[in-house]
Amino acid sequence: MNWILKQKKKEHVLFTLPLPEPPELLNRLREKFPDIDFEYIQFGTLETFRNPPTIPRETIAGKTVLVTAGALPATAADCPDLELIHFISAGINHIQKHPIYTNSDIPLATVSGIHGPPIAEWVLMTTLLRNREYERLYEAQKEHRWIEYPEQRPRDMVGQRIGILGYGSIGRQVANVSRAMGMEVLAYTATPKSTPESRKDHGFVVPGTGDADGTIPSQWFSGTDKADLHNFLSQDLDILLISVPLTPQTHHLISKAEFEVLAKRRTFVSNVARGPVIDQPALVDALKKGNIRGAAVDVTDPEPLPADDPLWDAPNVVITPHVSALSAQTLERIFQVIEANLERKEKGERLINIVNRKRGY
Amino acid sequence: MNWILKQKKKEHVLFTLPLPEPPELLNRLREKFPDIDFEYIQFGTLETFRNPPTIPRETIAGKTVLVTAGALPATAADCPDLELIHFISAGINHIQKHPIYTNSDIPLATVSGIHGPPIAEWVLMTTLLRNREYERLYEAQKEHRWIEYPEQRPRDMVGQRIGILGYGSIGRQVANVSRAMGMEVLAYTATPKSTPESRKDHGFVVPGTGDADGTIPSQWFSGTDKADLHNFLSQDLDILLISVPLTPQTHHLISKAEFEVLAKRRTFVSNVARGPVIDQPALVDALKKGNIRGAAVDVTDPEPLPADDPLWDAPNVVITPHVSALSAQTLERIFQVIEANLERKEKGERLINIVNRKRGY
Repeated sequence: MNWILKQKKKEHVLFTLPLPEPPELLNRLREKFPDIDFEYIQFGTLETFRNPPTIPRETIAGKTVLVTAGALPATAADCPDLELIHFISAGINHIQKHPIYTNSDIPLATVSGIHGPPIAEWVLMTTLLRNREYERLYEAQKEHRWIEYPEQRPRDMVGQRIGILGYGSIGRQVANVSRAMGMEVLAYTATPKSTPESRKDHGFVVPGTGDADGTIPSQWFSGTDKADLHNFLSQDLDILLISVPLTPQTHHLISKAEFEVLAKRRTFVSNVARGPVIDQPALVDALKKGNIRGAAVDVTDPEPLPADDPLWDAPNVVITPHVSALSAQTLERIFQVIEANLERKEKGERLINIVNRKRGY
Repeated sequence: MNWILKQKKKEHVLFTLPLPEPPELLNRLREKFPDIDFEYIQFGTLETFRNPPTIPRETIAGKTVLVTAGALPATAADCPDLELIHFISAGINHIQKHPIYTNSDIPLATVSGIHGPPIAEWVLMTTLLRNREYERLYEAQKEHRWIEYPEQRPRDMVGQRIGILGYGSIGRQVANVSRAMGMEVLAYTATPKSTPESRKDHGFVVPGTGDADGTIPSQWFSGTDKADLHNFLSQDLDILLISVPLTPQTHHLISKAEFEVLAKRRTFVSNVARGPVIDQPALVDALKKGNIRGAAVDVTDPEPLPADDPLWDAPNVVITPHVSALSAQTLERIFQVIEANLERKEKGERLINIVNRKRGY
């Protein structure tokens, strides 16, 4: 091991982020990795980060690691020394047509996993406030009214059953908090997870959160066809959390037929994935008919949701403008993932959050 | 053991509740304890339960267990066979002047512990919605407006530090969910809890919730004087949960001097105890000056809070009308405690939730 480390060449890390250098976070890396050379260049701004400038050949020369929001060298030929490109986003759809993606095998890493805690908090907050009809309490407070207890008392979460459609980092942190509230967790994944090993989360996990070992769900379901999905949706779910990536396969995954299955128990539906995973007119219809108890959506189709969209006036729905992942700790967590990968690289261990170019994430 | 059981006389349980018989819950008891004789008499109504009729001597004759909201025999002499009186409330202030309390040693049990889950949900909901300024999202939704991300992003709960003043069943369930959200928990109790045994919760715990072993807090604090309390309040708390019983010692426990200590970190204050534990004008002042980040109170002084009370218009406060414990599962949980104690009595084990008459709870 020592021998291998001695043979390794010095790492040169280049940051090209669309924001001014965050000195505290960078200094923490410099202190932790005294043998690594770090350089930081602001590349564009947050406003222009979707059309980033190309990184010149001479800027990237000699660099072994690139940390970027999207700025890249023109081609792999321009960066022969590069051993890792670390993106600061959880997804990398925005560079999937770039030659570095299509015509190189430079490992690409994401910061997938960092959004679990704030999104899980959004899920809890919106589920609880719908469950207690918080709007009534809020409106009464505005009018200085101490209202009477409602006759119909809310069922608390103990013993409620949450089905988590897509058991990634977000679903796992929702599972973790749901369990603490006394709920039962059922997980659904596209591919079967029949062994303890297959249930593990090998990506980045915010310390102290999530379900890295995959031991929280009492039951696991899987499949990619309607029958599998309907079987899962008919498990007397009190709450359905949708936390799958948007792909051609998940487009309108929850549509008219699925809402009919959910009507059996009037399942509450929470969507933190992407708007088009739900067939939105079918959602409006299910809400209006009372076929589901309610819904909370942080994502809509389209976004922004037009002022005249019927979803706004559907009953028992919480709509928020794609804010669930927002957190003051995002940048700090991005640096935690980079730190974890630099440490693994230094030790010659397997990196985390490496993109499978075929799968696209 | 069998020999002991055979020697035991038959149990006769009398329910005198101010509501019609709940057949499902009672049948569950009958099925679980085929050797016990159960009788149910509706005694008064929910409207009159604070002034319950006296239980006649002939009604209680031969009964070994009484389950009651407050109706009691006139004196202990009227119920020589009674071995246990099980109340269906968490507190029993309402009967502390009754001869059965003052002049008998019949064991009294409460259902303390059943309110942890719904109150913890209220604490989470209100803390999270203040943290994200949910009112802005709600008002925007009413107006069909898809608002811009706020510039100041909210800090999520990971790494936040919650101080729990009064580590009973409510505080423990808040601790449990807080830990799952990635928070650090500090506990404060009146008496020191320096051994693992002393940290245990020996009362009723809703299965799957709480912190029965007292292993969640990273630090324990205790004491009954100002210096001890101020030391706890100055531990860089992001959130302070007040969950102590109201006693002469806790009246105005959090007053001007305490808010000054909390101002150091602008600690968010949550009160689920009783209104008078906080000196309310001092709370209003702390909110107006911005000395605390905000507050959530389910209890006020007095209740109902008069429409012209200045607390209504203080900034960054959530006020709800004493609803945090409300739950559709309350009666079911009351029966769970009774079931647990009947089982323990049958096995000759120590009962739970037995009132210490001197202490008053």
